[in-house]
Amino acid sequence: MPDSQAPITVTTGPLPASRRVYVDGTLNGVRVPMREITLHPTAKEPPVMVYDTSGPFTDPDQSIDIEAGVPRIREPWIRARKDVEDYPGREVKPEDNGNVSERHLAREFPEKHSPLRALSGKRPTQLEYARAGIITEEMEYIAIRENLGRSETMPAGDRDNGEGFGAHIPDFITPEFVRSEVAAGRAIIPANINHPEAEPMIIGRNFLVKINANIGNSAVSSSIAEEVDKMVWAIRWGADTIMDLSTGRNIHNTREWIIRNSPVPVGTVPIYQALEKVGGVAEDLTWEIFRDTLIEQAEQGVDYFTIHAGVRLPYIPLTAKRVTGIVSRGGSIMAKWCLAHHKESFLYEHFEEICEIMAAYDVSFSLGDGLRPGSIADANDAAQFAELKTLGELTEVAWKHGCQVMVEGPGHVPMHKIKENMDKQLEACHGAPFYTLGPLTTDIAPGYDHITSGIGAAMIGWFGTAMLCYVTPKEHLGLPNRNDVKEGVITYKIAAHAADLAKGHPTAKARDDALSRARFEFRWEDQFNLSLDPERAREFHDQTLPKEAHKTAHFCSMCGPKFCSMAISQEIRDFAKLQNDNGESIEDAQAGMQEMSAEFKKKGSEIYLETKD
Amino acid sequence: MPDSQAPITVTTGPLPASRRVYVDGTLNGVRVPMREITLHPTAKEPPVMVYDTSGPFTDPDQSIDIEAGVPRIREPWIRARKDVEDYPGREVKPEDNGNVSERHLAREFPEKHSPLRALSGKRPTQLEYARAGIITEEMEYIAIRENLGRSETMPAGDRDNGEGFGAHIPDFITPEFVRSEVAAGRAIIPANINHPEAEPMIIGRNFLVKINANIGNSAVSSSIAEEVDKMVWAIRWGADTIMDLSTGRNIHNTREWIIRNSPVPVGTVPIYQALEKVGGVAEDLTWEIFRDTLIEQAEQGVDYFTIHAGVRLPYIPLTAKRVTGIVSRGGSIMAKWCLAHHKESFLYEHFEEICEIMAAYDVSFSLGDGLRPGSIADANDAAQFAELKTLGELTEVAWKHGCQVMVEGPGHVPMHKIKENMDKQLEACHGAPFYTLGPLTTDIAPGYDHITSGIGAAMIGWFGTAMLCYVTPKEHLGLPNRNDVKEGVITYKIAAHAADLAKGHPTAKARDDALSRARFEFRWEDQFNLSLDPERAREFHDQTLPKEAHKTAHFCSMCGPKFCSMAISQEIRDFAKLQNDNGESIEDAQAGMQEMSAEFKKKGSEIYLETKD
Repeated sequence: MPDSQAPITVTTGPLPASRRVYVDGTLNGVRVPMREITLHPTAKEPPVMVYDTSGPFTDPDQSIDIEAGVPRIREPWIRARKDVEDYPGREVKPEDNGNVSERHLAREFPEKHSPLRALSGKRPTQLEYARAGIITEEMEYIAIRENLGRSETMPAGDRDNGEGFGAHIPDFITPEFVRSEVAAGRAIIPANINHPEAEPMIIGRNFLVKINANIGNSAVSSSIAEEVDKMVWAIRWGADTIMDLSTGRNIHNTREWIIRNSPVPVGTVPIYQALEKVGGVAEDLTWEIFRDTLIEQAEQGVDYFTIHAGVRLPYIPLTAKRVTGIVSRGGSIMAKWCLAHHKESFLYEHFEEICEIMAAYDVSFSLGDGLRPGSIADANDAAQFAELKTLGELTEVAWKHGCQVMVEGPGHVPMHKIKENMDKQLEACHGAPFYTLGPLTTDIAPGYDHITSGIGAAMIGWFGTAMLCYVTPKEHLGLPNRNDVKEGVITYKIAAHAADLAKGHPTAKARDDALSRARFEFRWEDQFNLSLDPERAREFHDQTLPKEAHKTAHFCSMCGPKFCSMAISQEIRDFAKLQNDNGESIEDAQAGMQEMSAEFKKKGSEIYLETKD
Repeated sequence: MPDSQAPITVTTGPLPASRRVYVDGTLNGVRVPMREITLHPTAKEPPVMVYDTSGPFTDPDQSIDIEAGVPRIREPWIRARKDVEDYPGREVKPEDNGNVSERHLAREFPEKHSPLRALSGKRPTQLEYARAGIITEEMEYIAIRENLGRSETMPAGDRDNGEGFGAHIPDFITPEFVRSEVAAGRAIIPANINHPEAEPMIIGRNFLVKINANIGNSAVSSSIAEEVDKMVWAIRWGADTIMDLSTGRNIHNTREWIIRNSPVPVGTVPIYQALEKVGGVAEDLTWEIFRDTLIEQAEQGVDYFTIHAGVRLPYIPLTAKRVTGIVSRGGSIMAKWCLAHHKESFLYEHFEEICEIMAAYDVSFSLGDGLRPGSIADANDAAQFAELKTLGELTEVAWKHGCQVMVEGPGHVPMHKIKENMDKQLEACHGAPFYTLGPLTTDIAPGYDHITSGIGAAMIGWFGTAMLCYVTPKEHLGLPNRNDVKEGVITYKIAAHAADLAKGHPTAKARDDALSRARFEFRWEDQFNLSLDPERAREFHDQTLPKEAHKTAHFCSMCGPKFCSMAISQEIRDFAKLQNDNGESIEDAQAGMQEMSAEFKKKGSEIYLETKD
């Protein structure tokens, strides 16, 4: 792939009316980024703070150098704990990049960092720190981040307590609350000691709902430049983590470029690379090759591994009568291996060794649902729930080894079967965070599966899922391009935010209210700037009313200048100086209305302001 | 608007692999259209029948002449009942088209039909027939249509009973069931006696969930040609009804072209045109002008009127402290009128006369929610529920007059407040069908409000809403163009179908299963053809794998030829001749696996078929 030699360019610069600001913590150099959206002076409102996943790429004060990677902010914190050591690390082998010839080998990332690992007998994981009562810099960082910079004395705005289905979201997130949730296993902080570039974030049902975006090149297309650009593009629009699902050639080098430039945690499915190392022949996989791949990726800094250790030999027959069989790649790789050898999965057999490796780097588990349903017909079946039970057992084993754990979920599920997934996972997996793909609520709309799944994602997020894995419009059909990645990320930001609102997260509603006030007051620019996609909002508005004058027009193209419902509502408010606008005593109201109506006519019943044109 | 003089062209012809077929009924000329999707011979499956709203435009055997309109299929049924009379009808007045000069006057629809109205003392409404125990042609038509041509002896396929929240959907819809639901007021058949072109359809929670698409030109843009094209385009993709929300000039002539060519029921908001007749000055509205407008539109054949009679003077103060006040145009027009005159709404005061007019033409009520919330902050507030209570009272009044009634709902509602809307409506409105706009589940994504609202629409449809009014990506920003209309319709077909699946509608799951089987068996063409948007599905697939060979490839671009999870699942199925694939007796399963594994290796562990390239 010659184009992988081309210089890598990514999208930088702030979003409209936005500024990346930093809130200092109390611990060693903790400095938490947020996005501040400035409103028009006429709003007479403070700027709106929103969660910012975009990293230094949106900060004009930071120089961006893809060849050097982003700042290694966590390195001093990690080293100061004195429980890790530098070591030479594993040699990069030809098979790590698919044994490609020089001509096809993607350029290596220029800067080399020797990896860190736990000192023998140590477990440098956020879970172990939390259990020991230690509040790490990562935990304080996360507390500040989840509060969007709000101090404990600052009101949470007009909070709606929502319905949390057992979630317990406090009005204010303290570092101690973060620690206690991690210690309880209800939340994870994906933070490999070899990915110090990552800005700490948390995945748990008592925090903001997070989203993941999948990227990665495939055997049939794309390059390193494209994938790094996709990563930066995905986090610009709000991806909280990204998964590198690269297959084919140059997997190792592609991943290095991505991790060194990623300010968000990076996840992978190590079995994909292991399979490439054995030429794509699943039955040739061995524990040794897989183990070597885990170490290779842990040294590079992957923050969480999807491990399909729940796909056990006895469960495979349960999929035989399914409409769509096994649709998880990892799941089917392991199913094929089990079939070919008629042996129990080596991931299951060697699970404790996997835990030891992951604990030494603080790589979090994402226990893969290899038997997830791939169609409405297969939802919530025996195979799926048999595996879930095993994932619950493995969760406890991983916790025993000090590893952080989240659990993956479906998939394709009709609406009436979604809640059962959440409830069964909470019970089977002892409260470990749930990480679901969608679910898609119908199979009949290929080309729109960001929407079929966005519906299910919003619902399961409300029910308690901690992170939602996005689905792009290309799902089932092809590889997502840049536009598909953005469409998928925005759709999932909508689902996650709708869930935060319904759960009653204290910081969620403020943005809706600020945007609605802007809408009501015809502050078009503010409405655009407060939206998830300011560029599209402005573009759509301008398609019908392009003139600059229309940016201050007290009407929109739906009603036109002749009549606007928002305008009259403002009139009602201006005139209606009513004591009792809460519905009590209709009589007083009507008295008030009497004056109002006179006053109203006197003022000439003007209901809108004409614009220049 | 000179372009309104241009010849009107619309999109015609069948969708891929589809044929418009007809199922004959037993009553006078009942012939029900459906869309038959043919599958590839290798599927060894019968064609899949789907609900067809597209009218004659997708039937190559029918000649399309926009100048003549579509066939008047219901005319003989209506006349045979002997309860209506021809009469000259109201003269078209200059103000009906906004007093535009000849130059700006849109061309009149060529063919004139003198209107019908009830003989004095008669009420030719489907509700009155149903109450009298009469099964009309419309009712038989609907029964056949809702069963998708399935006969009572034919199995409903693998039905999942779902969760209906009190809905009672039988395995098979009989004409008598249709009659009883209409008689009970739980369903309506919008069918103006002056719109005989409409193919009968039903709106009720015990039937398939329907969707509406809004079209109509506005003061700031568009023409008759565009609006007729949008109508045909909207029904091509599945709109069950359309609403003509035209404002500005040429409203009368635009509507005539739309109705004469519309095979689906047409709804309007008469107050919009009445307002134009008084130059946009709400306080100049009078009962006489409104009444005259109702007759004008009833004679043209509008099938349902949105009437905002629930916006009562005493409720207006309840909106004064809202974040977004009154966002319904009809609601704010009436609020302004009430304020200016300090009088109770003339719609409320004259409601019984409105009922008499609508009963004489069988125009159905869509009781407008003029005080619906326009933001998350205003959801489920006192103003909204005060109006809902009044809508319930008006429902009973309209029923007393033999009128069919549905009730409109919000709007903007966070997920945890959606079900309360459905429950309160069912109680307050005595089971009359609910017709909601979305609801949008967050305010922060202008440009993506088809998605923010698609989430709420799927949920409220599941909870019992009978018809979902679409929202396009342009909501809040501009006027939908052709692409926006399609995006909105497809999104709402997804929401409605997801709701049908969750409610356990007997015909819903068959299409998902057929598509999933096609996906699993790599019948790409079938997967495209069974999808809601075959064109986009194919286009997205071809962006990554354009070659024709790939249409039969046993892999897709996500995994590439090297490894495909679907392929191995098929292997597992082929090899796994297991007695007990239902999960019992793991031992037998493992025994089976033993043979399987040997057999598997013998066959060379081939897991995919290479394609030519």
